[in-house]
Amino acid sequence: MSPVPDSPSPPPRQARAAATRERILEAAAADFAAVGYHGSSLSRILERDAGVTKGALYFHFASKEAMALAVVEAMGDTYRGLVETAARDDAHLDPLRRAARLTAGIHDLLWPSPVVRAGVRLSGEGAVGPAWSSWPTRFWEATFTALFVEARERGELRGEVDPVAMGRFVLDISQGAFITSMVTTGLADLAPRVAHNWEVAFAYMAEPAWQAGWRDEGGMTAVMRHHLEQGGDVDGGG
Amino acid sequence: MSPVPDSPSPPPRQARAAATRERILEAAAADFAAVGYHGSSLSRILERDAGVTKGALYFHFASKEAMALAVVEAMGDTYRGLVETAARDDAHLDPLRRAARLTAGIHDLLWPSPVVRAGVRLSGEGAVGPAWSSWPTRFWEATFTALFVEARERGELRGEVDPVAMGRFVLDISQGAFITSMVTTGLADLAPRVAHNWEVAFAYMAEPAWQAGWRDEGGMTAVMRHHLEQGGDVDGGG
Repeated sequence: MSPVPDSPSPPPRQARAAATRERILEAAAADFAAVGYHGSSLSRILERDAGVTKGALYFHFASKEAMALAVVEAMGDTYRGLVETAARDDAHLDPLRRAARLTAGIHDLLWPSPVVRAGVRLSGEGAVGPAWSSWPTRFWEATFTALFVEARERGELRGEVDPVAMGRFVLDISQGAFITSMVTTGLADLAPRVAHNWEVAFAYMAEPAWQAGWRDEGGMTAVMRHHLEQGGDVDGGG
Repeated sequence: MSPVPDSPSPPPRQARAAATRERILEAAAADFAAVGYHGSSLSRILERDAGVTKGALYFHFASKEAMALAVVEAMGDTYRGLVETAARDDAHLDPLRRAARLTAGIHDLLWPSPVVRAGVRLSGEGAVGPAWSSWPTRFWEATFTALFVEARERGELRGEVDPVAMGRFVLDISQGAFITSMVTTGLADLAPRVAHNWEVAFAYMAEPAWQAGWRDEGGMTAVMRHHLEQGGDVDGGG
């Protein structure tokens, strides 16, 4: 920690440039999240934020492609930060409960910043090249699989359950919920979809004793309560 | 049925035009399936099929957008045809087995024609306007929900299972498997992902007696055998 100065001094040129870049990135992410890669354009992004000039935009990003890549890279940093924080804050919990809280944590990142929402959409579209498009899937698959392998070692999975297959399964239910919710409700029903999908996953994979304790605590509805209260109930009604 | 002529006569102008349109649509679908809406272009599509001229292409489709819409409409026709055929051919089966066979039927449509693969990708990208982008999700959700409601009435679902929520669930596991498989393996592991996801769905929702019979028959592995033998095994190993 550096000492706090008596009065704020004008930000140096480098800090100003970084702030401008950040501002452009947010405007670009908002546009990518709303209309996807193909629907977005540099002129649309400029319209989103009147404070960003065309010159500044081209100074920081040579193309729409470069901007999309920067959004997905920023999402990557955010994801790695979440996993590090969760490993520290949730160390006292068993691995299945850590998986549930990570899912709620990802949900926390989707609002209010558009960067993660845009990153999920861009990578799902395959719009940022093969390596970056597959990165979020690979990253979360490895993260969740490690938790499920730990749950297996602790005897918290049912006998026939394959932790590696379940690592892929939770990616499919998450990515699938994002896409179907986006195209049908503009993400309005994402939280109840995700909560329900994870309840099915836990009901399938966890030992009966673990499930009994989980239900007593309120399950995914309790873990994602503040998202569900904004959007709807976990069963979704119909 | 009209009588077969002695020798083939040259196709009338209208039939030739329809054949050319079909050929352009297949080339466009192949390109959309491979690189998505944003990556595709009219010049890339012309490169895919040297027999299609620029003039013919513009005669049939005014823009890339019009072509994407035609691909998704063709997918819609194919889906409706599948559901009609299945309702006739599988009428002797119970609703959960009909759901399993519909899933294998959708898989049959993904190869060899690129139209359905392209349609799934374009609608998931939200690249064809809100109405068409949500159409496949709504269509399959309604189709599967009706089957699960019927299973509920026949006492083939476990007590706590909500057939409407399961209609959304199977859309998420299908759309999710398509996206994650596409970005990580170019769809090579789609069949084992889908088969595993449906086994989890059945294990969660079906009555124990139904599950016992289903396992005896070989489950999803039996229903999707010819896809799985091409691609991998249902547990996927790791």
